[in-house]
Amino acid sequence: MLTINDFQAAADRLKSVIHRVPLATSKTFSDMTGAEVYLKYENQQKTGSFKVRGAYNKIMKRYEEGGLKAVVASSAGNHAQGVAFAASRIGVPATICMPRSTPIAKVSATQGYGANVVLHGAIYDEAYAKACEIVETEGAELIHPFDDEDVIAGQGTIALEILSDLPFVDMVLVPAGGGGLVSGVAACIKQINPRIQVVGVQAEGAPAIAENFKTDVITPSATVHTIADGIAVKNPGKVTMAYINQYVDQMVTVSDAEIAGAILLLLERTKQVVEPAGATPLAAILNGKVDIKGKKVCCVLSGGNIDVSFIHKVVAKGLVTRGRHLKFSTVMPDIPGSLERFTHIVARENANVILLDHDRMNSDLDIGEAILNAVCEVSGKEHGQRLLDALRKEGYKILT
Amino acid sequence: MLTINDFQAAADRLKSVIHRVPLATSKTFSDMTGAEVYLKYENQQKTGSFKVRGAYNKIMKRYEEGGLKAVVASSAGNHAQGVAFAASRIGVPATICMPRSTPIAKVSATQGYGANVVLHGAIYDEAYAKACEIVETEGAELIHPFDDEDVIAGQGTIALEILSDLPFVDMVLVPAGGGGLVSGVAACIKQINPRIQVVGVQAEGAPAIAENFKTDVITPSATVHTIADGIAVKNPGKVTMAYINQYVDQMVTVSDAEIAGAILLLLERTKQVVEPAGATPLAAILNGKVDIKGKKVCCVLSGGNIDVSFIHKVVAKGLVTRGRHLKFSTVMPDIPGSLERFTHIVARENANVILLDHDRMNSDLDIGEAILNAVCEVSGKEHGQRLLDALRKEGYKILT
Repeated sequence: MLTINDFQAAADRLKSVIHRVPLATSKTFSDMTGAEVYLKYENQQKTGSFKVRGAYNKIMKRYEEGGLKAVVASSAGNHAQGVAFAASRIGVPATICMPRSTPIAKVSATQGYGANVVLHGAIYDEAYAKACEIVETEGAELIHPFDDEDVIAGQGTIALEILSDLPFVDMVLVPAGGGGLVSGVAACIKQINPRIQVVGVQAEGAPAIAENFKTDVITPSATVHTIADGIAVKNPGKVTMAYINQYVDQMVTVSDAEIAGAILLLLERTKQVVEPAGATPLAAILNGKVDIKGKKVCCVLSGGNIDVSFIHKVVAKGLVTRGRHLKFSTVMPDIPGSLERFTHIVARENANVILLDHDRMNSDLDIGEAILNAVCEVSGKEHGQRLLDALRKEGYKILT
Repeated sequence: MLTINDFQAAADRLKSVIHRVPLATSKTFSDMTGAEVYLKYENQQKTGSFKVRGAYNKIMKRYEEGGLKAVVASSAGNHAQGVAFAASRIGVPATICMPRSTPIAKVSATQGYGANVVLHGAIYDEAYAKACEIVETEGAELIHPFDDEDVIAGQGTIALEILSDLPFVDMVLVPAGGGGLVSGVAACIKQINPRIQVVGVQAEGAPAIAENFKTDVITPSATVHTIADGIAVKNPGKVTMAYINQYVDQMVTVSDAEIAGAILLLLERTKQVVEPAGATPLAAILNGKVDIKGKKVCCVLSGGNIDVSFIHKVVAKGLVTRGRHLKFSTVMPDIPGSLERFTHIVARENANVILLDHDRMNSDLDIGEAILNAVCEVSGKEHGQRLLDALRKEGYKILT
C-alpha cells in the first residue's frame, strides 16, 4: 500500500513539471452553503486537468527504473493529454488509441503534445484492445488511467498541496469515476491527518463506486449515462476500490442538472471554466449532499476541458431555468397588422424576440385565428412576468 | 501629476483589501504570436474587475482626509460594484444611480455589496444627472469612474504588481475606454522604467482616445457601438487624456469580431471567463495590431463580468465560424420517405441535427420538390465537408 513517502516522491518528480494551481476562498459559495468554501483550481493545471500528475509520476518512475522504450494508452479524454504531455516531457515515445468518433479538437490537442494518435474502433473498448495489441507487438508499456498505484500516488499529490495551503481544512471533496483521484487524495490525507474527512462525488448515472462502497465485491454499473464524461466509468478499479474502502469517509452522487447548475455558477461567479466531472464536488455541497455547515471545506475542481458546444448547451439550459429565455404561446387574429401590434408591446416592455413562429394547424383554433409561439429574452423571471401581464392587459390569452 | 509615491500609497491602501491576482504565462498564445505572452488575471479580482482599485483608493483617501459623509456614483457596470464594495469595506454609505434598463443581475450584485441603488432615467446621462442631484441635496461626494487622479492612482497599482512579477517585461497592453486604467498603468510604468512600452487598446466602435491621441483637443466619438460595454465611452477624460498623451506609446483598436474570437479562446485555452473590454489586449496581439515578435508581452485581462446570455451568443458565433455548426440547404422530392433517406445519411456520417425546416414556396422549385434547410452539429470543417460530400454522392444537390 502507498505510504506518505510515495506521495512525497511523486511530488518531487512533479515539482518542476506541473503548475502549483491556486487554492482560493469563495465568498459566494461560502454564503450559499454556510460553510467556509475553498476551491482548488485544477482546471488551470497543465493539459487542463489533474490527469497529468498520475501519468507523469508513472512514466517518470518507470523511466528511472530503466528499460522503458515507449508508452501506450487508450483514452478519448484527459488521460490522453496527460500521457501525451508527460511522455513528451520525459522524451519517451507515446501512442494514444482513441475511438474513431473522438472529436477532432481532442485528437489535435493530444497530437499537439507530441503523441502518435491511432484512431481505432467505434467505442472505447475497441480502442483499448488496440492499445493492448501495441503492448504485444511493439513492447510499449500500457499506462492505465486509474488502476495503478503509481498513477494513484501522482493524483494524491493534490492532497499535499491542499494540506500545505489549508492545514486546518475539515473536509475535502473529490470527483470519482474510476477512483484514481479519490484513492490518492484519501490515502494521502488520512495517513497525514485522520481528522480530515474525504468525500468522493460520483454522477448519479455512473455510480459504481458509491454502490460498491464498503462492500467486498465490485459490481459494475449496468449502464452509464451522464454529462460528466470524465467520470463516466462503468467498472471501477480493483486497486482503487481497496484504497477507497479503506480511506474514504463518504460517497455521494449528484444529478446532471445539479452538475450543469454548478458549471454555470462557476462561469458566472468565479470566472472559471470547469468540466462536468470537475464541477461535481461543488454540485454536491450546493445541493446538500453532505453536512458542511460551519466547516472548512475544499472542493477539487479537477479539470476544465469542456467542449465549446457543451458550454453552449449548459448556458442555454441555464437561461431557460433562470427565466432569462421565456417561452410562451398566444392566440391572435390571422390578419394584417396582427403581428405588428404584438411586437409593439414586446418592444415597449424592452424584451428581445429570439424566435417566433405561426401555428395555423392546431385543432383547437377557430378559422381566422393563429397561434404564435414565441421565445423572448428578458432580464429575469420578474421581467418575464411583466411582459406576460402587459400582453394579457392588451387582451392576449397566454397559453403555456 | 502623479508620482511613484502616489502609486505606492495607493498600493498600501489596497494591500489587505484586494486579491493579488495571478500573472500567468500562456504557452498557447505565445505559440500563436511568436512572443512570450503573459496574462494578468484581473477578471479574478474582487467585484470581478480592476475598478475596485481606483474606487477604494479614492474613497479611502478622502476618508483619511476626514469629513466624508457618503459617496455617490452613476454606473451600470463595474464601477458601480467597485464603489459599492469599497464604500462598504470602509463603512461609508454609498448610493449608485443606474438607468432603469440595467439588468437585474447587475442591480442585485451592487446591492449585494451593501449599496443603495437608485434606478433613474432611460439612459446613462439621466442616471448621472440624478447622481449630481444627490451630491447637491445630500452632501455625498461623487466618485468619477475615470477622470480623477486618485482613481487613476488606484488603477495604476496593477503596474506595480506586473513590474514586481515580470521586471523584464517589454510591453504591457491595457484596455482603454475613459482612460483611467491606461493612464495609471502608463504613468506608473514609465516613471519606473521608460524602456517598457505601454499600449492602449480600444474598440473600433468607441475609438475616442485613439483618435485624439497626441493632439491638443478632445473630440468625442460621434457614435459608440461595440460589444465591449466596459470601454464604450464617448468622451474620454481631460485628466486621463493628459496622462495618456504624456506616457502611452501607442493606441490601437480592435473589432467586435476580434474581441469575440479572443473571448472564445480564453474560455477554451485558459479556462477563464473574460468580459469583452478585458479581452481587447489579447485581441490586439492575436490580430497583429502591434509588433510583438520575440518580445515579452503582458496583457491585462481587466475584468470578467460578462452576462451568461452574452457568453451564449459569443459561443454560438464561434461554433458557426469554426465550422462546428454547419448550415446548408438541399432539394428533395416532396414525398413520403424522403426525409428518412436524408436523415439516414446524416446519422451514418455521425452528425447531429440541430434544426430542420421545409421550404415549399421557393420560386425556383418544381412542383413535387421541396427545399430542406438544415443546421447540423459536426466536429469541425473537415467533418462538415465529409457530410456534404456524402450527401452529394447520394444525389443530393447542396445549395449554400
